[in-house]
Amino acid sequence: MNYPNGKKVKTNQPINAKQNTNIFSNRGMTLEEDINSTNTYYRQSNKAVIHKKPTPVQIVKVDYPKRSAAVITEAYFKQASTTDYNGIYRGKYIDFEAKETKNKTLFPLANVHDHQIEHMKAIDAHGGICFIIIRFAAHDQTFLLPAEKLFSYWNVKLNGGKKSISFDSLQTEGYPIPFQYRARVDYLAIIDKLYF
Amino acid sequence: MNYPNGKKVKTNQPINAKQNTNIFSNRGMTLEEDINSTNTYYRQSNKAVIHKKPTPVQIVKVDYPKRSAAVITEAYFKQASTTDYNGIYRGKYIDFEAKETKNKTLFPLANVHDHQIEHMKAIDAHGGICFIIIRFAAHDQTFLLPAEKLFSYWNVKLNGGKKSISFDSLQTEGYPIPFQYRARVDYLAIIDKLYF
Repeated sequence: MNYPNGKKVKTNQPINAKQNTNIFSNRGMTLEEDINSTNTYYRQSNKAVIHKKPTPVQIVKVDYPKRSAAVITEAYFKQASTTDYNGIYRGKYIDFEAKETKNKTLFPLANVHDHQIEHMKAIDAHGGICFIIIRFAAHDQTFLLPAEKLFSYWNVKLNGGKKSISFDSLQTEGYPIPFQYRARVDYLAIIDKLYF
Repeated sequence: MNYPNGKKVKTNQPINAKQNTNIFSNRGMTLEEDINSTNTYYRQSNKAVIHKKPTPVQIVKVDYPKRSAAVITEAYFKQASTTDYNGIYRGKYIDFEAKETKNKTLFPLANVHDHQIEHMKAIDAHGGICFIIIRFAAHDQTFLLPAEKLFSYWNVKLNGGKKSISFDSLQTEGYPIPFQYRARVDYLAIIDKLYF
């Protein structure tokens, strides 16, 4: 089958994600770049359809110059009311947030917003798979923490306790995400073990 | 349970969507406004968690004035690579596009992009519930068309046939979406019948 531009439809041959493991370290890429390239790989290999949502922007002024594209000349960043990533994997709804910290010993919960937690609780209640990915850049370590465990930390904070998740407790409560050459943050490897 | 600002967590009592039917007509609201208010109602009544994705924008220049919020001073609209709406309903992944036309007799398929069709096919293949909502503003009628049926029209177009969906054929191939007072485009009423 062809698209109107004559391009062939991709056959989406599955590629073995485990062929290259841990040969390359995770240098210089942000967590967002790594997740985006992972999601592209997941889509191209027909494993999952997961996208980052566009950055929410409040558009105030737009110019429409003759013979060229509309230019937004005044706009402001809006706070996201949901998480950044969602999609479908093995028939299930997937929803997650991703955060990177330069802190060496702890992840401050101030990086997550009330309405994001509220959103994650709703997703959880509706049977979606929901989690947060946390990277400690200084340690070059990336963890998956299921939403229910994030809620526990959040509750401690609400009750006047610790306002952060320590690097040490993530070692036991979280799941280290393997680095693969094509799936740089291969979080679905963890999801396979936890939810299927 | 309380959030840090002292606000109570919503109990999300389900509200009967069928209490008010067809009393109010659909005056003056765009399809997007109607769907957004419907999704808000669905979320508040704890029926589904479905959001519109933010408009994708390519940010080129940002000013950081002292003592006030960052201002985006140059940005451009990007073409969406996915559909506009997605989320979870009754444990299933939901994904759809919504389009309004002023045309009285047909919906031009040029309103839908190749990569959106490609995205919808991927969602369909992964077991998501995927469809398009089409409103004929002149007739004040809104239809749900399942993705597989949209693909049939699309294939006809690719094979050099009709480049549109006629209002008449939507009457038989599509499903008229009921208007409810609080769920102005109550598309989940159709999803209930078609997929559950």
